[in-house]
Amino acid sequence: MTLSPLAPKGGFPDLPVIEGVTFAAIAAGVRYQGRDDVMLAHLCAGTAVAGVFTRSATRAAPVLDCEAKLGGDTSEAAAFVVNSGNANAFTGGRGTATVEAVTASVSQVLNIPQTRVFTSSTGVIGEPLDPARITNKLSELKAGLSANEANRAARAIMTTDTFPKGAFATVDGITISGFAKGSGMIAPDMATMLVYIFTDAKIAQPRLQKILSHLTDKTFNCITVDSDTSTSDTLLMAATGKGPEVTDEAAFEAALHGVMLDLAHQVVRDGEGATKFVEVAVTGAISDSDAHLVAMAIANSPLVKTAIAGEDPNWGRVVMAVGKSGAAADRDLLSISFGDILVAEKGWVSPSYTEEAGATYMKGDSLKVGVDLGIGTGVATVWTCDLTHRYIEINADYRS
Amino acid sequence: MTLSPLAPKGGFPDLPVIEGVTFAAIAAGVRYQGRDDVMLAHLCAGTAVAGVFTRSATRAAPVLDCEAKLGGDTSEAAAFVVNSGNANAFTGGRGTATVEAVTASVSQVLNIPQTRVFTSSTGVIGEPLDPARITNKLSELKAGLSANEANRAARAIMTTDTFPKGAFATVDGITISGFAKGSGMIAPDMATMLVYIFTDAKIAQPRLQKILSHLTDKTFNCITVDSDTSTSDTLLMAATGKGPEVTDEAAFEAALHGVMLDLAHQVVRDGEGATKFVEVAVTGAISDSDAHLVAMAIANSPLVKTAIAGEDPNWGRVVMAVGKSGAAADRDLLSISFGDILVAEKGWVSPSYTEEAGATYMKGDSLKVGVDLGIGTGVATVWTCDLTHRYIEINADYRS
Repeated sequence: MTLSPLAPKGGFPDLPVIEGVTFAAIAAGVRYQGRDDVMLAHLCAGTAVAGVFTRSATRAAPVLDCEAKLGGDTSEAAAFVVNSGNANAFTGGRGTATVEAVTASVSQVLNIPQTRVFTSSTGVIGEPLDPARITNKLSELKAGLSANEANRAARAIMTTDTFPKGAFATVDGITISGFAKGSGMIAPDMATMLVYIFTDAKIAQPRLQKILSHLTDKTFNCITVDSDTSTSDTLLMAATGKGPEVTDEAAFEAALHGVMLDLAHQVVRDGEGATKFVEVAVTGAISDSDAHLVAMAIANSPLVKTAIAGEDPNWGRVVMAVGKSGAAADRDLLSISFGDILVAEKGWVSPSYTEEAGATYMKGDSLKVGVDLGIGTGVATVWTCDLTHRYIEINADYRS
Repeated sequence: MTLSPLAPKGGFPDLPVIEGVTFAAIAAGVRYQGRDDVMLAHLCAGTAVAGVFTRSATRAAPVLDCEAKLGGDTSEAAAFVVNSGNANAFTGGRGTATVEAVTASVSQVLNIPQTRVFTSSTGVIGEPLDPARITNKLSELKAGLSANEANRAARAIMTTDTFPKGAFATVDGITISGFAKGSGMIAPDMATMLVYIFTDAKIAQPRLQKILSHLTDKTFNCITVDSDTSTSDTLLMAATGKGPEVTDEAAFEAALHGVMLDLAHQVVRDGEGATKFVEVAVTGAISDSDAHLVAMAIANSPLVKTAIAGEDPNWGRVVMAVGKSGAAADRDLLSISFGDILVAEKGWVSPSYTEEAGATYMKGDSLKVGVDLGIGTGVATVWTCDLTHRYIEINADYRS
């Protein structure tokens, strides 16, 4: 798979060690050959685990299992086990049995309660996942656990991704480090996205959960590649408590927000077939939720996304998307900008706008579409990419 | 523009004359060169006019004008004037002025009240439409009015269409005849679609309006090409009263339903880049509206549509779309079929299903995706097409 032209220039970051967390990855042959496809993260006793999951009505078995396990006793060690290649989704009773078999086996091999074993699966929907592929490798995975293997773990969970996604931050002596996968079936409610974030912070589970849920609404739920939502989306965060206590919550939240937004942006930058990274910023709506509706309608419009792919400053399609969003809008109060260029104001093309300026701006690979509805104070910002031939190629061929 | 492979084999039908209606078309150079781009329909005194319009919050000036004129006095003659090439949408005060200028001029030239002149415009959004392009040609259009020019009128309103769309029916001595344009920006709430239907039936305007609105929900609001909704969608129906009175309303409604569904299907068959015509039939939902939600989520999913383009029987993506629809669903009660092939039942692949049978079925150019939710009696059927490279080509180049 050719590297996305929007991949971060610096490559995968050198993720810092998080005290209390070790990683391993292995080629288990779940579906892919010749590459790692299972990762294990071991979390020390006392680790608080928080999570956010897809809101799909057809949630996969691993998601249902993870949801049920959040908020339990944290006194013993815990583990994350993730495989790529098979989503173990829509596999009926067998899906649940596979989760049971994998978590029981991890529990035994690592000597931790089964209620502390969290699994995720990503890949093909509707095909049975043979648990033996994973359980056969657990001893080997255990033997390979190391604080320095986050890089390999991040690669093992990739599917159509063209690059692994990592980010980290430090604040008040606390370290936060995370990685993610995802490039298609990406839309609010988290899409086919798996995200794992680790910190040595000392923080109670309910408090961590509250912060994580809140920040998800401002990050992963504000990105869309193709408006499709996965059955398997999972964000898990582990706080080992080996580092300082969280005292300045605002500072911790800001640092975590930075890591989550960075990872979310990287998912968009690896959007299937993407050649442009697009920020859609809506202001002046009657409410923040209306602003979000408008921003998502623009970010999901195939006509807007193909125009961007064609480097066409087609602001008429932005108007169309505002109109169809369902949000309150007044055509004659609408203003639109591309970057710093005012394109339209009060319902019509701005006298200062030239098609040439718009066309030149659209040649960039990082674009900003601004819409002011002029009727209130609601704001929202979302991120997306363009819709290109490559998206069709990837999805008319790849069986996901 | 290459003819859509899904175009009706018989070509444009030989539309019957409707007593009381005459047509003319002309090359006015609104935007296109060397082709008709304005059509005029003259409707005799006493004609009842009903209409249904886009629900976009950024409705174009001609739409707002038409809406305001419905339901008025029908004693005098009326006219439809439609141009392609420029949508006269998002043109601020100038848009309204253009509608005023065109309708005033038609009123004068045809000697009918301005309140009986209905205009539509389709094409580029956001560029001013010079009314003189149209008004300069009105005398010539008037001179060319003929009962036999429906074919030319249907062609004059095309934009990215690859074929003109027509359909007719007769019932109880009444004749119904209509034509439509539309191939992109097609989604419920009628999309960039213009539809004109004529009948010689004698029927009061409020009764006609009620039937038309009701049937729109079962036809044009059940098709989607790309989920995008236009600012200009217009369906106008004229009943001249020169033929028999509508006595058997059910029979009249059935005949009109046939014409509307035929035209709606033709719009999908001309969907930008379409190579497959797809019916999505949902049963067993808790309500009809939930069934519609599910059907539209499937029909609009880029991942489902690209899989169909790739002739991939990827029923996992259908599950995904059910899950994200927002409708009530139970993963383990879900059944899916492709045509007569039962693919999945009770939440997992059917024992009788083979990938080979699915793959063979997907090679057809007219496909049916069936989903039974197994939790109620709600049903809905919608129609869409696949998402192909050609869609990207058309929309990354064409300025609409």
